[in-house]
Amino acid sequence: MAEKRNTNYEKKQEIIFLLNEQKATKFRELFLNLHVYEQAQIFTGLDLKQRARIYRYLTPDELGDTFDAIEEDPESIVDYFKEMEPEYAAKVITQMYTDNAVDVLAFADKKDLPKYLRLMSREKADEIKELLHYEDKTAGAIMATEYVKIVGNQTARSAMHVLKREAEKAETIYYTYVVDDDDRLIGVVTLRDLLVSGDDMLIQEIMNDQIMSVKVDEDQEDVAKTIRDYNFLAIPVTDYDDKMIGIITVDDIIDVIDEESAEDYSGLAGVDIEESPDNPIKAAAKRLPWLITLLFLGMSTASLVSHYEHLVSEASILAVFISSITGTAGNAGTQSLAVAVRSLAYKDDDDKTLFRTIISEIFTGFVIGIITGTTIMVIVGLWKNNFVLGFVIGLAMMCAIIVANLAGSLIPILMDKIGVDPAVASGPFISTLSDLTSVLIYFNIAKLFLAFIIGN
Amino acid sequence: MAEKRNTNYEKKQEIIFLLNEQKATKFRELFLNLHVYEQAQIFTGLDLKQRARIYRYLTPDELGDTFDAIEEDPESIVDYFKEMEPEYAAKVITQMYTDNAVDVLAFADKKDLPKYLRLMSREKADEIKELLHYEDKTAGAIMATEYVKIVGNQTARSAMHVLKREAEKAETIYYTYVVDDDDRLIGVVTLRDLLVSGDDMLIQEIMNDQIMSVKVDEDQEDVAKTIRDYNFLAIPVTDYDDKMIGIITVDDIIDVIDEESAEDYSGLAGVDIEESPDNPIKAAAKRLPWLITLLFLGMSTASLVSHYEHLVSEASILAVFISSITGTAGNAGTQSLAVAVRSLAYKDDDDKTLFRTIISEIFTGFVIGIITGTTIMVIVGLWKNNFVLGFVIGLAMMCAIIVANLAGSLIPILMDKIGVDPAVASGPFISTLSDLTSVLIYFNIAKLFLAFIIGN
Repeated sequence: MAEKRNTNYEKKQEIIFLLNEQKATKFRELFLNLHVYEQAQIFTGLDLKQRARIYRYLTPDELGDTFDAIEEDPESIVDYFKEMEPEYAAKVITQMYTDNAVDVLAFADKKDLPKYLRLMSREKADEIKELLHYEDKTAGAIMATEYVKIVGNQTARSAMHVLKREAEKAETIYYTYVVDDDDRLIGVVTLRDLLVSGDDMLIQEIMNDQIMSVKVDEDQEDVAKTIRDYNFLAIPVTDYDDKMIGIITVDDIIDVIDEESAEDYSGLAGVDIEESPDNPIKAAAKRLPWLITLLFLGMSTASLVSHYEHLVSEASILAVFISSITGTAGNAGTQSLAVAVRSLAYKDDDDKTLFRTIISEIFTGFVIGIITGTTIMVIVGLWKNNFVLGFVIGLAMMCAIIVANLAGSLIPILMDKIGVDPAVASGPFISTLSDLTSVLIYFNIAKLFLAFIIGN
Repeated sequence: MAEKRNTNYEKKQEIIFLLNEQKATKFRELFLNLHVYEQAQIFTGLDLKQRARIYRYLTPDELGDTFDAIEEDPESIVDYFKEMEPEYAAKVITQMYTDNAVDVLAFADKKDLPKYLRLMSREKADEIKELLHYEDKTAGAIMATEYVKIVGNQTARSAMHVLKREAEKAETIYYTYVVDDDDRLIGVVTLRDLLVSGDDMLIQEIMNDQIMSVKVDEDQEDVAKTIRDYNFLAIPVTDYDDKMIGIITVDDIIDVIDEESAEDYSGLAGVDIEESPDNPIKAAAKRLPWLITLLFLGMSTASLVSHYEHLVSEASILAVFISSITGTAGNAGTQSLAVAVRSLAYKDDDDKTLFRTIISEIFTGFVIGIITGTTIMVIVGLWKNNFVLGFVIGLAMMCAIIVANLAGSLIPILMDKIGVDPAVASGPFISTLSDLTSVLIYFNIAKLFLAFIIGN
């Protein structure tokens, strides 16, 4: 594999060299022989002058295939379209799979979009306009409209003919969908079924009528779950009249799974983990809102400690353990949070399960709290030769952990209930919140035992 | 979709009812009409007595298909095999796809495994023994051996015949692999190519000889990346002699992507997020090692604060801001960590890019540090009417953030360099480490300005 990657690297260098030397024919030969993913990789590494040459050397159809494989954010792809002649851009968009074209055009300028649509075939423009209406992150927004459909009273042979005719452009030829006269989905035939059944058999005899489909407004995360659980290569999308209007293929779903797990992960760290690391100012601008918000939340912890400053001035030893207690409770809370967010994303969220999760987290918090609290009690007792202090620290840590565990599981579950994405209840938020409760618990327990701590 | 799920629920209830009533024929009819994923869902919800009936009502071949779709951990599946007659179990295993069978058998008892293997066909047993040797999480461990291969001088028609014959059992029929006389992989023909080319064309004329493959010992994460980037439905696996020995399909890859992102995510929270929430004692046992380790690390922070206790007793106000500074630096460090872990997992990790990432993180830390530091300086200055104190807190926070950002990006990169999975350098670890450095920075700066803080 490593070897193959090196060869690829040399090939890419050669292609860029040919582009710079303006050897159009040789360039076309090598470039078009590459996999579209590799073409896309080369294209996105070029500068403006080199891209201008590409627009002259490649037909819009050829470049459209390359554009299907570009994985940059839609805004950058829109910028490429602006560099092209509008007619050329419209043709590139026409060649792209509709789902990809729509992803990009959702970010086009208000004035550019109608221009591109006017320059396309009426049919394609209508399809794109239709798809642009679907809400982001729903089945409608990620579906493609290039699929093969047949009717039930065709023979396997004639279905095979339809398939051969449409094979070039369909997103998948593995599933052929069977619809009735009203375009309602009534079954599916896999290519495997078509291959192994007799040529003269009727589609309605070989089709599977237990077909699963998703509604156009279904959340993309649920679609991903269905495709993954059932190991489908694609799933059909229907509108509110049960008419078939598109398909979602497994490769789109991989991107969704990746995106959604990146979101959960980002939430846990309070940062967009997909940020480009090239621009420190931009990166800082993205991270600062979280940090400043948390800083203000953290100031309430400071003001709470400030409220107990007289305790600290009487027993400065108390300051020594603030960070141990807040840190450990924060860690425990983050653990609960991560488990809860994951279980919300991947399990069926009936109320009974959620209630069990919360009860279970409280018990887990107890067990962890007792063991961790006892550990620190012994350590502090021995270290400072003060077992009352050890007891205070241990008890405070235990209580702080139980509260943090409860918050870590309860907050995301409540957020999910009111319809907010629980991944936003991020790790830093939980741990900053837990700082506050931990300090409150710590100083109140310490106050009760103050005489003993100092007296010892 | 919701409606469909309800129907499914009723259907499941009915099937379980039929099983309890011992209506074998009606049970078989309904059960076998379900998708294997639904069959698996029902099966895993049954009790021992109900499962014993399943083993009587279903043939091993029928149950083998169900078992291919069970997603429980391999240990539980091995337990099911123990409930069956060994002959029955061996037949179920034979019917399963080899990759799934091997996943499970890797967890079988030392005495059961040879028994099952002896009861299978020689060929299947040899294949399983072969696959059991591959290291966990490599291409060899997740590949299947059910694929279709042909030779280059066949016609498209004869290739289609081979395909039809093997369609029933192959993991994918979408790709047919072309090998030479020594079983070396020389090309691939998609079913789309076969469908659109003339019946009498030779395979070597229509095949794509720019075929990508992975080596048997390649890491499963790299395989996943290749399949995702190129949008493949499957990729062939070759041994050290370039002989083709298996394929990895996209559905296996979805599981890998999910598993790997769960690992990264677990690392960030210091917990196995896939843990079952049903048993608090077990959950606590899994989380405690991390918490106790971090507690001990946190004790070094406490002992550091203890070292500066005289400072706190002179200016108890210093204690007020410990948690703000450690908390904010910890949050910033966790952000850097998450971005670095993600970029290590998904980008090409050449040294230049990594060096740029580190430099960029230092700059980002500077920008964030200056803005956050200035904010807290103003807040503290106004609140406590003490701008020297504000300056100390602000400066300490800035320095602490820069160090935390550097650690958050540098540590995972260094771990990756020495071959340790950077996801293990988890969030709690970074934030506990950052507590230590933050406290050190804070008290040293405070010491310099102590006279001014108290004097004011």
